[in-house]
Amino acid sequence: MRLSTYKREGKTGIAAWFGKELHGFEEGSKGYPGDLDTLLARGASLMGLGATLSSAPHLETASITLLPPLGKPSKILCIGLNYRDHAAETGFKLPDWPAVFARFPSCLVGHGSQLVRPAVSEQLDFEGEMVVVIGKKAKAVSAGHALSHVAAYSIFNDASVRDYQMRSSQWTLGKNFDATGAFGPWLITPDELPPGGAGLRITTRVNGSTVQDASTSDMVFDVASLIEILSSTMTLEPGDMIVTGTPSGVGYTRQPPLFLRPGDICEVEIERIGILGNPVISH
Amino acid sequence: MRLSTYKREGKTGIAAWFGKELHGFEEGSKGYPGDLDTLLARGASLMGLGATLSSAPHLETASITLLPPLGKPSKILCIGLNYRDHAAETGFKLPDWPAVFARFPSCLVGHGSQLVRPAVSEQLDFEGEMVVVIGKKAKAVSAGHALSHVAAYSIFNDASVRDYQMRSSQWTLGKNFDATGAFGPWLITPDELPPGGAGLRITTRVNGSTVQDASTSDMVFDVASLIEILSSTMTLEPGDMIVTGTPSGVGYTRQPPLFLRPGDICEVEIERIGILGNPVISH
Repeated sequence: MRLSTYKREGKTGIAAWFGKELHGFEEGSKGYPGDLDTLLARGASLMGLGATLSSAPHLETASITLLPPLGKPSKILCIGLNYRDHAAETGFKLPDWPAVFARFPSCLVGHGSQLVRPAVSEQLDFEGEMVVVIGKKAKAVSAGHALSHVAAYSIFNDASVRDYQMRSSQWTLGKNFDATGAFGPWLITPDELPPGGAGLRITTRVNGSTVQDASTSDMVFDVASLIEILSSTMTLEPGDMIVTGTPSGVGYTRQPPLFLRPGDICEVEIERIGILGNPVISH
Repeated sequence: MRLSTYKREGKTGIAAWFGKELHGFEEGSKGYPGDLDTLLARGASLMGLGATLSSAPHLETASITLLPPLGKPSKILCIGLNYRDHAAETGFKLPDWPAVFARFPSCLVGHGSQLVRPAVSEQLDFEGEMVVVIGKKAKAVSAGHALSHVAAYSIFNDASVRDYQMRSSQWTLGKNFDATGAFGPWLITPDELPPGGAGLRITTRVNGSTVQDASTSDMVFDVASLIEILSSTMTLEPGDMIVTGTPSGVGYTRQPPLFLRPGDICEVEIERIGILGNPVISH
């Protein structure tokens, strides 16, 4: 099941995909079940929700704008240096414990929306990543039980303003410029993927040229391990997001560096999940 | 005006203080205006809210539990190393740009509630800090205009699990154990304080002994500068929190180290704002 959040004529809606057909309800309409953040918080099953949406009106995809599937997750936990080759290219040590930083909802944009290179920097860099969405509260969960806490997977472009990221020991500011966290196009339920989203090819393209190409099995800490480790410190709540890290090939470690420029199109594709594509503009 | 969020008989309420008298409405009761997160998001004036609450029923303070004034802020931006003497004691370089890390709502507890030392560590450390709450959306705001975006101030104990904080380059996990972020007892409006909350004595006590003692004027980046810098990268939204950093005296840099132990009482006092006190328990 694939579920999207969208906007049409100023109203937010929730929709499910049936092949290339989209069916959805908008806020204020009879049948609108609420937004995905709220539904996950209430413990709704995304499979059940998909079944409900099969009877919703058909939507012309040309008439809608996709939004980030979740608009106000209470945590966006991003994992740094979680692919061996990427850790090596950055010069950081391969972590024996995950490097975790945060994004906030104010940085998110949906599939097809503009990634914004801020006025203050020319160092906007791409990072294709797989997203894990928590469906069931997790506190001190072992890796063996971790995957039952996953509601869905998705795709993220963790576009990073490198000079700001490196300006202090903590990366937060360079990771939270407005409109730099692309997320979507949909949430996909775990039944459609291998366990833990493992073994999927993940590629990033800039203007059609492949710049990252790896397998989600190359993660240092796989999805189950991440849930075990994160939930050993904090309670993971329904709707919380884990952005699982990026493979090698990012722009700032290249010679010469390859940063995103206005007019570029950046796409992140994960096998069996989909393609997240965004044009780049300057502020 | 001082405003608190509380729980009584299983219901959440919102209250204002008139001297030592507390007047409040609970969810489900006629007159309940909503929670502080929602009200700030809607642009409500805390002064006006206080006036409304003056007609609310009187509450026996013994009958209520104070909760964190805000329960689901979309950002909790914490500033590391923001007092010169503290930066020096940690061995980190004095920052020329703020080191910003995140907390998430799942770590918050209110005044009087238990700070929990997790089962996995004996290194729970205190950090007394002043909180700034944003009242009006701020994007690329200059320091000169920054303070008009502040809705309130408050107090925070940024209790840190040091071994987990230092286990990777990013401090997030050691800063987000459940029930380690004490916040309260109330939000206080800016009219009751000097501009920017500057020049206020801030002290932390463990079992009555003073362990931190400084002035909020000793910040490296003052409140107006923090808002200018943060809003130059991201949009600050109503209800977002800035936790402005801690002075010197933290436990892990002492010889011998002084960590919080079950049975301790930890208090953070800021002149003209109040006292935030919490007992410590083990998990």
